[in-house]
Amino acid sequence: MDTEEFRRIGHELIDWIAAYREGIEARPVMSPVQPGEIRALLPEAPPQRAEGLEGLTAELDRVVMPGITHWNHPGWFAYFPSNSDLSSVLADLVCAGLGAQGMSWQTSPAATEVEDVVMDWLRQMLGLSEAFTGVIHDSASSATFCALLCARERASSFSQARSGLQGEAAPLVVYASDQGHSSIPKAALLAGFGKDNLRLIETDEDHALRLDLLEQAIQADLSAGRKPCALVAAIGTTGTTALDPLEGMAALAQRHGLWLHVDAAMAGTAFVCPELRWMWAGIEGADSLVLNPHKWMGAGFDLSAYFVRDPEHLIRVMGTNPSYLRTAQDGLARNLRDWGIPLGRRFRALKLWFFLKAHGVEGLQARIRRDLGMAAWLAEQVDGAPHWERLAPVPLQTVCVRHVPTALAGDETALAAHNRTLADRVNQGGRCYLTSSVLKGRLMLRLSLGAQATEPRHVALLWEELQRAADQG
Amino acid sequence: MDTEEFRRIGHELIDWIAAYREGIEARPVMSPVQPGEIRALLPEAPPQRAEGLEGLTAELDRVVMPGITHWNHPGWFAYFPSNSDLSSVLADLVCAGLGAQGMSWQTSPAATEVEDVVMDWLRQMLGLSEAFTGVIHDSASSATFCALLCARERASSFSQARSGLQGEAAPLVVYASDQGHSSIPKAALLAGFGKDNLRLIETDEDHALRLDLLEQAIQADLSAGRKPCALVAAIGTTGTTALDPLEGMAALAQRHGLWLHVDAAMAGTAFVCPELRWMWAGIEGADSLVLNPHKWMGAGFDLSAYFVRDPEHLIRVMGTNPSYLRTAQDGLARNLRDWGIPLGRRFRALKLWFFLKAHGVEGLQARIRRDLGMAAWLAEQVDGAPHWERLAPVPLQTVCVRHVPTALAGDETALAAHNRTLADRVNQGGRCYLTSSVLKGRLMLRLSLGAQATEPRHVALLWEELQRAADQG
Repeated sequence: MDTEEFRRIGHELIDWIAAYREGIEARPVMSPVQPGEIRALLPEAPPQRAEGLEGLTAELDRVVMPGITHWNHPGWFAYFPSNSDLSSVLADLVCAGLGAQGMSWQTSPAATEVEDVVMDWLRQMLGLSEAFTGVIHDSASSATFCALLCARERASSFSQARSGLQGEAAPLVVYASDQGHSSIPKAALLAGFGKDNLRLIETDEDHALRLDLLEQAIQADLSAGRKPCALVAAIGTTGTTALDPLEGMAALAQRHGLWLHVDAAMAGTAFVCPELRWMWAGIEGADSLVLNPHKWMGAGFDLSAYFVRDPEHLIRVMGTNPSYLRTAQDGLARNLRDWGIPLGRRFRALKLWFFLKAHGVEGLQARIRRDLGMAAWLAEQVDGAPHWERLAPVPLQTVCVRHVPTALAGDETALAAHNRTLADRVNQGGRCYLTSSVLKGRLMLRLSLGAQATEPRHVALLWEELQRAADQG
Repeated sequence: MDTEEFRRIGHELIDWIAAYREGIEARPVMSPVQPGEIRALLPEAPPQRAEGLEGLTAELDRVVMPGITHWNHPGWFAYFPSNSDLSSVLADLVCAGLGAQGMSWQTSPAATEVEDVVMDWLRQMLGLSEAFTGVIHDSASSATFCALLCARERASSFSQARSGLQGEAAPLVVYASDQGHSSIPKAALLAGFGKDNLRLIETDEDHALRLDLLEQAIQADLSAGRKPCALVAAIGTTGTTALDPLEGMAALAQRHGLWLHVDAAMAGTAFVCPELRWMWAGIEGADSLVLNPHKWMGAGFDLSAYFVRDPEHLIRVMGTNPSYLRTAQDGLARNLRDWGIPLGRRFRALKLWFFLKAHGVEGLQARIRRDLGMAAWLAEQVDGAPHWERLAPVPLQTVCVRHVPTALAGDETALAAHNRTLADRVNQGGRCYLTSSVLKGRLMLRLSLGAQATEPRHVALLWEELQRAADQG
């Protein structure tokens, strides 16, 4: 594509995106299409001849937009907030426009060094000590996977240099809360530990991991000749943002030589506010931690921040040094290809840089506090309303609720169906979107606040819509 | 950031990117900065107050541009071509602007269905049968890792559901060429096979895997009670684009029940031209294959295409099904979170869609043929020049050469130093950039053609610069 066409279509797309964001509230949050509908709008075979991109925005409106679920909508209460602040949209444009590879320092020094700087800014913003060094991964799933691979190699004295896990005498064991994210079991299984060596520990009434049961599990494994290897703490859990007892877990990890990984993927953003950092007290005992600036914070997917205490270990596990990648600067600068699974790397640090220039730490803190205030308000309404039940504490921005009509009380199956119906009614209304989940056998509506566009009036609307849906019986 | 500021800075950036691409030839290809130079241009602490993005392009010019190595420069002959066609730059802009998550079908149906369509277009363009289904990964490293994980689970009858690799009786073994990409050993080690169970098979004089040695290695492992598990074929290798004997490897894989994965990361683009498909004859015997439309093709990093014959197996290895991700459409549509490691997914399919609209299959074929023609021309010059040696066949766009002055003939150490000096001279000139590598003990200059902007005159310039550097003694 030549630069003239790029300019023409590019300017059009800038305006199209601005108009999309300005008008987003008028759209139904959740895409209404059925499976196959979008696919049917596209030809079955690729274009043989160049068509050019004239008419692209009309094509996007016709083919793509009906199939978009609007994560930046003010009525977004589903899954988790995944803000793509417009500053980070511009950063993605620059990243693509430069087309620079950041796999080695030499392949574009700015990609590595801007990442060095913004990851250190983020460390400071979170109140983490200089013992931690950060690197950008695509997702918390990948970072957690790296953490368990590093744990495996530390506990096995680098079995990968010998027979891998296939040569280990005592099986290595991984521990996490049964409320942890699905990426934790996934990582443990992919890393080869096996389901039999994964302990998902029960949680207390606040849905936080029970330290006493964790200690019992470790002791039982030791007695059986197995080798405790890794422990994952959730700050907060995916279901309810429960806070695992990190200080106690760190002490146990230290006593038994376990790798402690902290999954603060969604909640970590909160710790930009100093008054909230009590929630991850003990964090300095972690070997690794992950949080996603691409969620609540707003730096635009994909930008997951992985911090480690021992970069040398990470590089020893992940590094390669083939002759075709050697450069004169090896040893003088970081080669970030050795800090994760993929070799190629986009210049993602621009997203965090632009975002922080646009908002500043104080701007971000103000928004986090606003969101916590709105969640507290919503929790109060639920607590004060008859037939509504709150199923978990609200330390952050997620409020877990269900409606319990007198006639259905005690009948979990009926309550699940009833609350699913409520969710469907609200979602089909198009003004709000929420998702449900199962918490210890009980279906709940997970109201996850934190979309940048969400203001108090949208939370009030959500509460009205939930009550109206409930009133329909 | 509000939409007014987004419009203002966005239009500026579109023009800035267009001007960058228009003026790219005047820049030195390789960034001239030293380690630490870029970092020193940025503050040590994050901005406390919002600064806004006024003056952003000046800031980019000051801080970022000196540290960019220009992968889209017409004098790019280093590593591999990584074209970011301007059409795909626009697609990344749209992807970020929509901010849609494609982890499940429901979370933005268009992200999944456009990917369904363009991956099928790509399958057709490559002449692959309908037995293959495609999915976008970030990189070939990740795709190859997935392939070896799938191989491990197939050979072990899903050991991950039991004790993982820790419970396997006979060690599983992985085979690849010793000229394969570093991501192959990396994947084998991360997947837990261990270095002792990785066989890097020697290659023939054309640097392709030797089938006889492969068969011997498999037999030796069988005799020793080990279990051959996976075989990776390189079409072409990273060093020289050598073509492993795929048909023979497929036959061996079938005979011994090995998972056959084909790494065609760079070269796969070539097979959009039907007349080149003989190079991967046997591909229908593969269980999985990867090629990177973000390299030579031009769809912009990251867009790696992973094709598999048995999607159900992939999903069984990679899938999770937590209650908070269940939707009413599960089973009716693909949930692409279950097709790889990360949960979150960007709407990357737009990049391939826009790129193919802009160029058409025929436009792409014409460029591939142009690049092969230029490589053949360069190989001819080298073959006809005294004291220049070509170290490998040139089936595609990579020409591997070295300069052998009479005085140094036979002295590998001196030749390596001499050719490294030649590379430095050319690179410091700023008009061309090439990288070196070691091929079976011999240092070579790897001239990797295929940047979109490279025309015959740039290849002629490269050849002149190499000769001039050699003439300096």
